[in-house]
Amino acid sequence: MKSFSFEVKAKDIAGRIGSLTVNGKKVETPLLMPVFDFKRQIIPVKELAGEFRFKALMTNAYNLLKDEELKKKVLKEGIHKLLGFDGIVATDSGSYQLMVYGSVTTTNREIIEFQNRIGSDIGSFLDIPTLPDAFKPRAEEQLNETLKRSEEALNAEFAVNAGIQGGRYLDLRARAARGIGSRFELNAIGGIVPLMEAYRFLELVDIIAAVKMNIPASRVVHAFGLGHPMLFSLAVALGCDLFDSAAYSLYAQNDRYLTADGTKRLAELEYVPCSCPVCSRHGIGLKEFSGEDRVGLLARHNLYISMEELNACKQAIAENSLWELVARRCRAHPKMLEGLNKMTEHSHWLSTLDVITKKTAFKITGPEAEKRTEVINARKRIERVKSECLVELPVFGKIPAELLDIYPFNSLVEDYGKQRVRDLEKVRALMDYQFGENAGELISEKVRIKKSRATQRIRWLYEGGEMIASVRASDHLVIPHEKLALKLKEKFEKPRLRVILTEDEDAIQFVKEGKSVMNKFVKEVDSELRCGDECIIVDSKDNFIRTGTLALSPAEIKDFKRGVAVKVR
Amino acid sequence: MKSFSFEVKAKDIAGRIGSLTVNGKKVETPLLMPVFDFKRQIIPVKELAGEFRFKALMTNAYNLLKDEELKKKVLKEGIHKLLGFDGIVATDSGSYQLMVYGSVTTTNREIIEFQNRIGSDIGSFLDIPTLPDAFKPRAEEQLNETLKRSEEALNAEFAVNAGIQGGRYLDLRARAARGIGSRFELNAIGGIVPLMEAYRFLELVDIIAAVKMNIPASRVVHAFGLGHPMLFSLAVALGCDLFDSAAYSLYAQNDRYLTADGTKRLAELEYVPCSCPVCSRHGIGLKEFSGEDRVGLLARHNLYISMEELNACKQAIAENSLWELVARRCRAHPKMLEGLNKMTEHSHWLSTLDVITKKTAFKITGPEAEKRTEVINARKRIERVKSECLVELPVFGKIPAELLDIYPFNSLVEDYGKQRVRDLEKVRALMDYQFGENAGELISEKVRIKKSRATQRIRWLYEGGEMIASVRASDHLVIPHEKLALKLKEKFEKPRLRVILTEDEDAIQFVKEGKSVMNKFVKEVDSELRCGDECIIVDSKDNFIRTGTLALSPAEIKDFKRGVAVKVR
Repeated sequence: MKSFSFEVKAKDIAGRIGSLTVNGKKVETPLLMPVFDFKRQIIPVKELAGEFRFKALMTNAYNLLKDEELKKKVLKEGIHKLLGFDGIVATDSGSYQLMVYGSVTTTNREIIEFQNRIGSDIGSFLDIPTLPDAFKPRAEEQLNETLKRSEEALNAEFAVNAGIQGGRYLDLRARAARGIGSRFELNAIGGIVPLMEAYRFLELVDIIAAVKMNIPASRVVHAFGLGHPMLFSLAVALGCDLFDSAAYSLYAQNDRYLTADGTKRLAELEYVPCSCPVCSRHGIGLKEFSGEDRVGLLARHNLYISMEELNACKQAIAENSLWELVARRCRAHPKMLEGLNKMTEHSHWLSTLDVITKKTAFKITGPEAEKRTEVINARKRIERVKSECLVELPVFGKIPAELLDIYPFNSLVEDYGKQRVRDLEKVRALMDYQFGENAGELISEKVRIKKSRATQRIRWLYEGGEMIASVRASDHLVIPHEKLALKLKEKFEKPRLRVILTEDEDAIQFVKEGKSVMNKFVKEVDSELRCGDECIIVDSKDNFIRTGTLALSPAEIKDFKRGVAVKVR
Repeated sequence: MKSFSFEVKAKDIAGRIGSLTVNGKKVETPLLMPVFDFKRQIIPVKELAGEFRFKALMTNAYNLLKDEELKKKVLKEGIHKLLGFDGIVATDSGSYQLMVYGSVTTTNREIIEFQNRIGSDIGSFLDIPTLPDAFKPRAEEQLNETLKRSEEALNAEFAVNAGIQGGRYLDLRARAARGIGSRFELNAIGGIVPLMEAYRFLELVDIIAAVKMNIPASRVVHAFGLGHPMLFSLAVALGCDLFDSAAYSLYAQNDRYLTADGTKRLAELEYVPCSCPVCSRHGIGLKEFSGEDRVGLLARHNLYISMEELNACKQAIAENSLWELVARRCRAHPKMLEGLNKMTEHSHWLSTLDVITKKTAFKITGPEAEKRTEVINARKRIERVKSECLVELPVFGKIPAELLDIYPFNSLVEDYGKQRVRDLEKVRALMDYQFGENAGELISEKVRIKKSRATQRIRWLYEGGEMIASVRASDHLVIPHEKLALKLKEKFEKPRLRVILTEDEDAIQFVKEGKSVMNKFVKEVDSELRCGDECIIVDSKDNFIRTGTLALSPAEIKDFKRGVAVKVR
């Protein structure tokens, strides 16, 4: 029987670096699965697994089923042996053929059973991909059939790559998402390849958002067929975890050279703007090849650049610079820029998932910066702060001068001059900003504020000889210690600032000892908190247990059964 | 004796792909010369010439002069044999040491003579690099000394990489540029490394512009020490032709990983956003190396990514998408964005160098688009057109509907609806736009307008059975044939629309036969023409010779002694 688990390791916007384990095989997301086509073997599996180091592949189960010889072989030895690949094998059901050719000669039950028998790690039922421009009644009919078919996959022996359809109708996508997301752990956004090909990125963004908003935050999301690297950062930022690419090969067969900034015809290139092993070796000499050699080299370049771009996305998540990456990529084409602007229309939702303090300075990339998640989160908190001394910052507008040291304001200050602010006022404003209106009143005149000798910045708060808080050197945020946390708890009513544990005694004990709070032991969490926020951990009777830092967003903590919710201090 | 020649092959903004020949060795610009340091040989010359395929290297003559053993050897066998390199060898004079250490133990004459003797292809006199923040009297004094020293290099046996100094004082830079540019073919903008290191890109842009505006357009411009790939597109767009990089090695020695979007500390990377041979092979495993191995791998990555970025710049020139590349790169850092905005302040000057019709559609990348060279050029020409039917386009404002098929408007039309315009009005408006006010009157009601069967677009104009013009399929611009050209010549007085040849009889004969007009045979050219414009070629008595397309901008045609000025039809 299948096993499937997913945890989030790092976050930025709705993007995440995750650890996905299927049947004991562990991979990191965002993950790219190259499609291997038995009929057109451009790059051998050995090379995909070896030189390219892919840990997951995708291939088409329907094509195997329809080839007598391969069918016999795969039923006998299993898909892994047939491929010569011991990583994760995902199989497609023939849905794509259904979309392109209008019909297939198999049934949902047959293709599910076939995938059970060949040992797919990830498989698909025969969902019906709705073309983007299908009339709504038709899209609805197809969706109803897809949802019905999904029922037959509930007991599949593979992880079901459950298709969410609905064409370009967002209400249908939302309904599909609720239907699929409630029952399957792996959700595939289907029918989007035609949008990719036609540069309909406005609709693509809306569809991904509609799906994500209507499934649990813990679902692994597969952007089915979205293999063009120029779209990776945008899709990752919206929360897609899996990508497959037949594109690397299909575009190569069409003499197309992929870049993170779009598609080039090889024939029109005069220089290769790439240093992958293919391009380093051949340079523009690539154009001198023809036939299969040319296709093979192009496919390899396309795959290298796709991996490279996914790595760029992961690095951007790791350093919290994903907005900046998306902003650069989306300037490669006006339709991409439209996609970026459309994404900012979802910033309110995205801001609930984003982290509250970032490792990389806030950088203005253009008009879209004003609508970023960080701006929404910051503006909400600025309202909590009363200040006599406002400073005008670009993008953010009027900001209390007391806050200029913290993210996201600190990188914008330089040219606007820092205001002199009394230390006590600064700490109080930070408390208001971080924890809520008047939280700063908890810092009395008697509190002693100690500064770092080296940097002359506030580092520690003492009251009556006891340290009540520290101020983090990296981002200048206040980290309340127990005494101050207790005062905060008293000032703000349940569930404000709180992560409330279930009644599991062992779990409570572990947290008391300083171990992380695991998602499954969280009963409730203040939805105004953000990933990266300091929080107060209490039991169901509101007894103080510890303080900690949120490792996920509240929505994720609610939905995830695995992984860390709060890093305990 | 040295030989040195330079021709321009392709253009975009002030950027250019050129063919540079030094001592019979031909290279393409923009060119990157890696610096090879005898004292710290991180990548062997054999690898730089072999695997990396560099055709030009730079090394420090002063260091050779000061090492007794190397000095003896290089004087005996010459610099090429010492390096084991038969490409172009450029040598530095010790100016950098002078800037960093404040003094050097050689004289200008000695270092020039030494470079003569060791056979440098390109060498430098001992110019005095002014630190950006030097006081102006000091900067001026240093500049005066530099200009004096340049005199001693006039008879050097190498191509003189003549330093233009002046610190951050634009009037000094301009004076230096006039002094150096009038006498040397290769002009090096010096003293800019500290600006690169301190992210002072506003000043960097102004300095490059001040230099370029005050030297002949035919000069090869070396951005001395500007080795960070993130700056290549900006510097190339402003007209820099040569780059050297010690940066690849210096940053590596400092554990820095270069990208086209900035510098990363290797220790902080979690993924490598690159697929160069080093990164493809090692991935983030790169971090597990230490000591010399780590430096060596980083240096190789840094060099690969530098070459890659220069290729991206060249491809952008080839396809006329350089503004878009700069716009993406400059979004990596607010200081880069400031640099981009500063560049647009020079758009009036840049617009005189830019091409008038581009291979890549005009794409809006942000607010800077409104200040691009294409907008300036187009607005000027729109004033020539009278139209009853204006359409509002983003960036350009109100545009005569008759012009919507041509660059730069055609890519912005889609969402704004094409207006129905009579063919005759369209052709007349195009004539006004391209050639001048009322040029459209030359197209009488009797002219027969023939369309392409396939595209239903205007392709040919006939008058009395004779074809008087064609309309180019790619960009919809009018190409006047002889009859129409004669009418244009009559309507617009000398030098309007004209390229006027010198009195060289052979040259005139060649042009009559349809050979290209070479720069040296051009006496005068209408300064309102732009590279890519159709023009009328006449002799000095204003007799019609042929029509043609400008291959360079008027300023370049005036300054260049070599290469093609006009492609004759």
